[in-house]
Formats: sequence, structure tokens, C-alpha cells
Amino acid sequence: MAPRYAPSLRSRMPPLAIVLQVSFIVLFAFFVETGDPEEGDEKFINSYANFQDVHVMVFLGFGFLASFLVRYGFSSVGFSMLVAAMAVQWATLLNGFLLTSSPSWKIRIKMKSLVDAEICASSALLAMGAVHGKTNPVQLLLMSLMEVTGFVINQWLIHSLFKTMSSIMSLHVFGTLFGVMTSWVLYRTENMPKHEKEKFDSKSGLFAMFGTLFLWMFWPSFNSALVKYKIIAYGTYLSLAVSTVTAMAVSALSSPTGKMNLVHIQGSILAGGVATGIAVTAVPWMDMTIGFCAALLATLGFRYLKGHMLHAFEIHDTRGVLNVHAIPGILGYLAYLLIRLVRLEDTTVAVRFAVNHICILLITVSMSLVLGIFTGFLIKWSFWKPHQDRKCFDDQAFWEFPHLAVRK
Amino acid sequence: MAPRYAPSLRSRMPPLAIVLQVSFIVLFAFFVETGDPEEGDEKFINSYANFQDVHVMVFLGFGFLASFLVRYGFSSVGFSMLVAAMAVQWATLLNGFLLTSSPSWKIRIKMKSLVDAEICASSALLAMGAVHGKTNPVQLLLMSLMEVTGFVINQWLIHSLFKTMSSIMSLHVFGTLFGVMTSWVLYRTENMPKHEKEKFDSKSGLFAMFGTLFLWMFWPSFNSALVKYKIIAYGTYLSLAVSTVTAMAVSALSSPTGKMNLVHIQGSILAGGVATGIAVTAVPWMDMTIGFCAALLATLGFRYLKGHMLHAFEIHDTRGVLNVHAIPGILGYLAYLLIRLVRLEDTTVAVRFAVNHICILLITVSMSLVLGIFTGFLIKWSFWKPHQDRKCFDDQAFWEFPHLAVRK
Amino acid sequence: MAPRYAPSLRSRMPPLAIVLQVSFIVLFAFFVETGDPEEGDEKFINSYANFQDVHVMVFLGFGFLASFLVRYGFSSVGFSMLVAAMAVQWATLLNGFLLTSSPSWKIRIKMKSLVDAEICASSALLAMGAVHGKTNPVQLLLMSLMEVTGFVINQWLIHSLFKTMSSIMSLHVFGTLFGVMTSWVLYRTENMPKHEKEKFDSKSGLFAMFGTLFLWMFWPSFNSALVKYKIIAYGTYLSLAVSTVTAMAVSALSSPTGKMNLVHIQGSILAGGVATGIAVTAVPWMDMTIGFCAALLATLGFRYLKGHMLHAFEIHDTRGVLNVHAIPGILGYLAYLLIRLVRLEDTTVAVRFAVNHICILLITVSMSLVLGIFTGFLIKWSFWKPHQDRKCFDDQAFWEFPHLAVRK
Repeated sequence: MAPRYAPSLRSRMPPLAIVLQVSFIVLFAFFVETGDPEEGDEKFINSYANFQDVHVMVFLGFGFLASFLVRYGFSSVGFSMLVAAMAVQWATLLNGFLLTSSPSWKIRIKMKSLVDAEICASSALLAMGAVHGKTNPVQLLLMSLMEVTGFVINQWLIHSLFKTMSSIMSLHVFGTLFGVMTSWVLYRTENMPKHEKEKFDSKSGLFAMFGTLFLWMFWPSFNSALVKYKIIAYGTYLSLAVSTVTAMAVSALSSPTGKMNLVHIQGSILAGGVATGIAVTAVPWMDMTIGFCAALLATLGFRYLKGHMLHAFEIHDTRGVLNVHAIPGILGYLAYLLIRLVRLEDTTVAVRFAVNHICILLITVSMSLVLGIFTGFLIKWSFWKPHQDRKCFDDQAFWEFPHLAVRK
Repeated sequence: MAPRYAPSLRSRMPPLAIVLQVSFIVLFAFFVETGDPEEGDEKFINSYANFQDVHVMVFLGFGFLASFLVRYGFSSVGFSMLVAAMAVQWATLLNGFLLTSSPSWKIRIKMKSLVDAEICASSALLAMGAVHGKTNPVQLLLMSLMEVTGFVINQWLIHSLFKTMSSIMSLHVFGTLFGVMTSWVLYRTENMPKHEKEKFDSKSGLFAMFGTLFLWMFWPSFNSALVKYKIIAYGTYLSLAVSTVTAMAVSALSSPTGKMNLVHIQGSILAGGVATGIAVTAVPWMDMTIGFCAALLATLGFRYLKGHMLHAFEIHDTRGVLNVHAIPGILGYLAYLLIRLVRLEDTTVAVRFAVNHICILLITVSMSLVLGIFTGFLIKWSFWKPHQDRKCFDDQAFWEFPHLAVRK
Repeated sequence: MAPRYAPSLRSRMPPLAIVLQVSFIVLFAFFVETGDPEEGDEKFINSYANFQDVHVMVFLGFGFLASFLVRYGFSSVGFSMLVAAMAVQWATLLNGFLLTSSPSWKIRIKMKSLVDAEICASSALLAMGAVHGKTNPVQLLLMSLMEVTGFVINQWLIHSLFKTMSSIMSLHVFGTLFGVMTSWVLYRTENMPKHEKEKFDSKSGLFAMFGTLFLWMFWPSFNSALVKYKIIAYGTYLSLAVSTVTAMAVSALSSPTGKMNLVHIQGSILAGGVATGIAVTAVPWMDMTIGFCAALLATLGFRYLKGHMLHAFEIHDTRGVLNVHAIPGILGYLAYLLIRLVRLEDTTVAVRFAVNHICILLITVSMSLVLGIFTGFLIKWSFWKPHQDRKCFDDQAFWEFPHLAVRK
């Protein structure tokens, strides 16, 4: 018989977290200094505003988006924060070493460093979405450090080979496939067909809506943080509006009783933002069409693909990140390719362009799959004290509820 | 006997929403292009910050403000989003055609277009407040498109006749009276004296507080988005602070047990922002006095007028928009008139000024009343499958709650 | 026997609030005018963005941070708003009279005036944290006006004596100690060992998390609003990230079952922001180390010191402000002193520097202790109708719950 209580993480989580944290401080002491204070106030304030929007998305948006599970709100928000706080430090170091061509070993922190670090953290948070509710904080810490490392190395590889950055595509595709593979390795058969605690209620749905809204509202900032020309904010805005209408309509259409599913919608209304940020068309109606298709695919993915993944491939993707990030991401990437190819007149250039970009996608996909499986096996190790199936999706495995103790 | 379940909207909402959405994309393909990319980054970032505040108010603020009903949270937030996402697209087109004096047929999207579109959407969201909980999403979509059309035509008419814009007054007055009239036509006698589901609890009140706070905090941005001189932000800020103190004091004073009513307060603390945005005095103590009077009237409106409207006129104004927007709006408009009239020395100019502005108010009021009644009859049509009285204020008519299905 | 219902505040709160509000309007009419409209739009927008972040923290952050008590959500958010709305008006006047060296009697409102006023309001909100749930709104109004007055006079005294401002240290230390002393005077023995309503549940914890997150995310803006060089935002950001990891690790480590306590963490993750804002090192690893120590002390403070304060000193510090603000504040101040002293080569200068700064701390501490005790006795007066012990931590003493009335 399984033990009644979830295993105590006292001897695992605190030592690991403290050792990592102290190491990061030491690394920062040797290698990091703050950027030039002469950088004008004006410029600082402008980039600070953009950073602030991304900051809200990463620390508040993703955490609350995941809080739809009725008994898993504390863990959703708390673990997201823990992982993101660790990931931004690690990503600042990695980005500084690998992606900046500085002659000295010193990393200078600027607003851009923080934004880049948060982008990496957001890819780790995506990956977490696929194992949401089935992992403890130690496993999540390890997983996120692996994901950030893989993500930055992937970026560096692409940059070295093709002299181009494609952070926004790989952000969505790498993070998602990494998480989905980890989830596949960690698959727990006993949770079938559906865990009794994997559900939402009228309040937890609203908390999740609140996180969703911050992601949705600030997505134009997210996309324009990554792309040189700010004009993408318009397209993202329109695409998200179209996504919203489409997701609600398709959710009602695909239900036998004509009712909408709030959690499906929360994912699907973001799909347009994902796809548009990668396609970068700068033409309103194209962005809107992409938003329409992305939300259509995402909503149908929630209704049909998610269950199929579970039953056919034993992949339990709790938050449906495959539908929200990977499929719209690849859709956006194909649209990006297609639009550029049509505009290129020279066939040789076009072929090289296409081959390069398909290689980038394939490298990203392969690295994420391999690293995801490896990470899955790493964190499956019983040394990390994974909790029993019965304690999945349950805050009481990790959090004190003092009022319960008092009541007894 | 009424059927047990709410009618399925599968054959109504998705087709209507998808047809509208595809038409909008086609219209955008012909008529809309993104603004000049040469517009400096600096300028973009500044107007983006202002847009962002309005964006949060429209998509998060109004939706969560309406979430005080204990069983109607998903619908409050979800339908607000659906309506706003549709309304901004429609408003972008209408504003572009009617209110921009462009020689070509092309509409150029700029940050200002998005802000203007969101202002129109917010007037539709106000109108929704009056029928909140008693309409299905198909009805809301139709209503909001009618409202936005009427609002923009009203603006265009006033602009053509008087060579002046008065968007901020008509925003509050047009939207509210339109909604109140629709609510009058849709009046359901069976909900009397009070629907058992029309209540709030300790959690739904907090969700609504959260929406209220975003409206309250960003109202200075809302007002300064519409007025040329940014200085109005100071007055709005002070007026809102005074409104808050006044609303709480008056709410306690007008209760037999000296207790405050959170939902009344949530409406009334915003009244100062409404009135100040229209009065535009730029004198701190005047703005504060206007805020005091607006909150006083709004709070008393919630206590006494709301019930009176219901019993004497059969107008069931769920969110009390009459108290929050129409009365403070007209108060602010009268203050605006009075302050300008006192300053004008030439009697002829003063009389013409007064007559013009009273005509603007009368046109706005008449148009909103007529169009509201017309829209009421349009959406009362049984083809749109209005739900039975018993299912009012209830999410289960429109949203899936999978955990309930599992439990059975 | 104690009466069954909480005493009605109808004859106390509304008259006091309205008289104060009208007096403030009259004072504003005589002494306040809006700042120069010639101030460029550009500059306005930049300072507005910074103000906006502080505004969100003061009005939304502190209110929701306090909403963790399961039956006290309306009061947490509502009373915070009431107090802050009153405090910003009073602080604008006091700051204008005492801290601005204007030749005329006119106070010109600028963005900076509003930010300064909100800083004062936030010190009053800190103080409220210590008496949270045990005071009625009349008592809170009086307490906050006393606190703001004391805080501004303390600032003025320090400025007059030492020609220096130390608003950010005194903000945390003055506010906290003032509140803790008031709480000591108001101590209610019957609430021992633990009031049955002083607990959180899975939803109220999330509401509080939401407030915490807004404080946490915008703390870099808060610190850079008070310090001349904006670069402090980087250090605050890193310090907060380290605080988060440390607080969670230490919370799990200090629990016998290895579980984390959400409410402890909500306080402790902010400790790094408090300390860094005072230490102002501009060296990343130092800020991170300070964040580590601050979170460590705060978390241990919640586990051990808070109970000790209650039993040994009869100080019931509901929100644990001593751990979140006072201890990290003093830690940051000592770090600030130490770093400067090490850099100073001239011993005489160093000694004078140290003596001056220790005097500033001592003055702040003494004033806050004395004024806190005085205020405690003032608001303990039964004329203000304090509610019976049984009604502590309970919204029903102050707020209408109409649905309950309907149900009966």
C-alpha cells in the first residue's frame, strides 16, 4: 500500500535550492556587473516599460494561467515563481557567456539582459505546463535548469551555424516539445482515465482567467520585445482579437450541447499571439488570418488531440501546451517561410532560405526531443522523491494549511 | 413547464461569430494597412504605454468588475472579452470610414486607432452592464455591434453639425442609456422581486474588486487618452481619491446598520473619474468637489434609485450603470458647461456655446434611447434562443463544468 | 455577555470621513494648484509610468497582500483603499508645506508630488498590517493620519538636522514600528492562543498571492522612484529573485514535514526588495547577498519570532510586518552604512558619517515608538466603538452580505 502522506522534501528541495542559489551568487560575483550608468534615463525608462510587461507575463501570467486546477493553486503560482526566479539567474549567466560577443569575461547587465533572461524563463515555464501537477519542486528545478541550458545552447548552435537568431520560434517549439517528452517519460498509468483532482471549479477558473488575461493583454509587448520593429504589436493585437472570437465560437461548435469550455478557451485565445509573433507579416489581414487558423487548430486540439495524445501515446499534457504553443508555433513558422519565399525572386536564394529555415526547425525539434527524454529519466529517479499518484494535482503534498491543523 | 436545460446555442452563436469574423478579415484585407513604420520608436513607446492602460481597463477591468455575481463569473469575463474583441475590429473599420478625413479609402492603423477602437468597445461594455446576466452571447454580440454603430454615427453626426468631438461624454451617456433601454425591453417579470442567483459572496466580491481596482487605478490614463492636455490625470487622480472616501462614508451612512455594501462601492468609487473626465477643470479643488458630488449621487443611486427604476419603470439595471456612468456623466457635462459659461464674457458667444452643448447632449440622449429600444426588440426575437428566467445569472447555461459530469 | 452584533459605525465613520474630506477639499482650494502645463509631454509620460507602478503597488498590492484571512477579504481591500485615498490627500498637503522650499504658500502638484504622497500612504499601510483585523475603519483612519503626520515630521526633522533625506529607510522602519507599538497597546488577551478566524484557505491564499505578486514585480519601480539613479532597478530585481528562492527553501527547511507556508513566503519574498532599496550597492552580487540574508531572516522571523513576540511581548503582528519590513530594513541600512564606511578613507569623515546615520536611525525609531504608543491609546478609546473580540478578522462586522439576508 502507498504511504498516506506525500514524502517530505525537507532533505531534498532546501539543500538543492540553497546550494544552487549560493553558487549563482558566487558566479555573479565573478562575472557580472551592472551596465553603464551613463545610459540615458530616457532610454532606460523606455526599455524598462517593455521589460515590465514581459516581467508581468512571466511571473504572474504563467503562474496564474496554470491555477485552473481546483486543489493546485498554491503550487501553480508558487512553483512557477520558484522556477522563474532560478531560471532568470541561470539564463543571465548562460546568455552572457554564449550569446554575447564580449571580449572580456564580464557580463554587463542591461535591461535587454533581463528581458532575454525572462524569455528563457518563459520557455521553461511552457515546458512545466506539460508536467503540471505531476512533479515536485525539486524535479521542477532540475527540469527548468536543463531546459534553459538546452534552449540557450540551441540558440547558440543556430546562431553559430546560420548567423541568425530565431528565439521566438524556438521559445515556443523547444519549450513545448521538451516538456511533452518529459511528460511522456514520467507517464503515470494509475491516473487513467482521469485523475479525480484534475478539474476546475467556478473560482479556480477565474484565477486562471486572470493569468490568461495578463498574458493575452501583454502579448503584443512580448512579441515586440523580441522583434526589431515594434510594428508587430499591431498585428499581434488584431490576431489576438480574432483568436478570441474564433476560440469561443469553435469551442461552442465542437461541444454536443453548444457550451464553451473555459480552460480550452484560456489556451486557445493565446494561440494567435504565438503564431503572429513568429510569422511577422506586418499586414493586418494576414495576421488576422493566422490568428484565425491558430485558434481553430488550438481549440480542436484541446477537444480531440489532447485525449488522443493521452490514449495513443501516453502523453499527459496537463495544460495542453502542445495545442497552445507548439502547433501555432509551427503554423506561424510555416507562414513566415511561405511569405518570405513568395517575395524572393531569385530561386537559388529562395531554396537556400527554405533549407536553412527547415534545418533550424529540425535542429530545434531534435534537440528538444532528445533533451526532454533525457531530463525525464533524470527526474524520474526515486532519489528526488516523486509523490505517489494519489497526491498528484494536490497542494497538500507541498504546502501547509494551518487552519486544518487547528480544526482537528 | 419550462425546459430543464438552457437552449443550446450551437446553431446560433458559432455560425454568427465565424461569419462576422471572416467578414471582418475580408474588410481588413481591402481597407486596412498598418501605419507608417517611420513613426519613431520613441513616440510609439509613449503612445503604447497609454494604449496599454486603456487595454487593461477594457479587457480586464470591465470583465472582472462584472464578476460579482456568484454563479456568473465565467460569463462576466468571457462574454466581455468576446464582445470587446469583436467591437474593436468593427470600431476600427467604422472609425476609419466615418471619422478620419483620409482622401483614399485606406485606413492606416496607428496606436491612436486602437485606443479609439477600445473607447468604442468600452461604451459597448457599459451597455452590457445593464442587461448583465439576462442575455446570451448571441444577443450580446448583436447588441454590441448595434451599440458601436450607433455610438460612432452619433460621434460623426455631432462632428458634422458642431465641428466638435465629445467622445468622453457620449461614451458614458450613450452607452448607458442604450443599455438601460435594451434592458427595459428585455424586462423579465418572473425575476421579481429578486432573482435567487443575483447575489455576491466573499470570493466573487473580491474578483469584482480586482476588476474595479484596475479601472480605478488606470482611470487617469483613460481620461488623458481622450483629452489633449495630459494634466487632466492629476484632477482625475484627486477626484477618484475623494470619490473613494465619499462612497464608503455614504454607503455606511445610508445603511440602517451602518454597514457598507461592497458592490455599491465598486460602482461609486469610479463615479468621480467619469465626471472629472468630462468636466476637465484643471483646478484641483473643483475636480475634488465634482468627485465628491458624483460619488454621493452614485451611492445614493445604488441605495434608492436602482430599486425605484425596477419597480416603477421595470428597468432592471444589473450593474447599476445608470448610477456609475449616466448620472456622473451628466453631472460632469453640466459642470463643464457652467465653468466655460462663467469664463465667457460675450453673451452671444455664451448663449451659442450653451445651446450647442445642450443640443449635443439631447442628440446623444435621443439617439441612444431610440436605438436602445430598437436593439431590445431585435434581440428579444426568439430566434436568438434567449434562455429561460430560471437560468439567468447562471454560468451553467453557457459553460461546461466537466468535473460535475465526472462526479455523476 | 458581549452583544451579538458588532457595534454600528453609522454615527462615527461617515461623519468623521466626510468632515475630513470636506476639510481637505477646502485646504486644496486655498493651497494647491496643478503643476506647470508647459512641462513637456515626454517628461510627463516618463514620470507617469513610474507613478503608475507605485500606484498599483499602493492601491492594489498592499490591499490584496492583506487579503489572506479567509473571512476578511472585503475589509483588507476596502479599508486599504479608504486609508490610502485619505492618506495621499493629507500627505500631499503636509509634504507641500514641510518638505518643499517654495517661497509662496502655493503647493504645485506634479507627478513627483503624487509619488511622494503615495510613499507616505504606503508607510501608513505598513503600519495597518500590524493591527490588521483588530481595528475598525474609524480607528484605521485616525491611525493613518497620525502615522502620515509623524512620518512627514520625522522626514522634516532629519532633513533639517542632517541636510539629508532617508525616506526609504524611514518608510519601512517608521511605519512598521509605529504599527507594532499600536498593536501592542491594542492587545486583546481573549484572542489567545489563536483566533479561530485568523486563518487562510486555498482561495484567500491566492488572492493574497496576487497582491504579493504586484508588489514583488513592481518593487524595482518602487525603489527607483525614490532613488536618483535608476540603476537600482537591476539590483532590486536580482535581490528579489534570490529572496524568492531563499524564502521557499528556508520555509520548507524550517518545517518538520518539509512543507512550505504560503503566507510566510508572501511576506519573505519581498524582504530582498526592502533591504536592497535601502542598501543601494549597485553591485549585483552584493544585492543578491543582501536579498539572501533578508529573506532568510524574514522567513525565520515568521516561523519563530512572530510567535515569540506574541507570547513574550503581547504584540500580535497580524501580517508580520516586523519580519517583512523592519528587520530587512535595518539590515539594509547597516549594509548601506558598512559599504560607505569601507570606501571612506578619512577617519574623521567616516566617524561623522556613521554617527549621523546612527542618529537618523535612532530618531526614526524613537519617534515611531512614542507616536505608535500614543496613537494606540488614542484609538483604544471606546468612543470609536472598537468591535468585540469575537468579531475580529470578520467582514460581517462592517460589510453587508445581502444574499444572507435574502436567504433567511
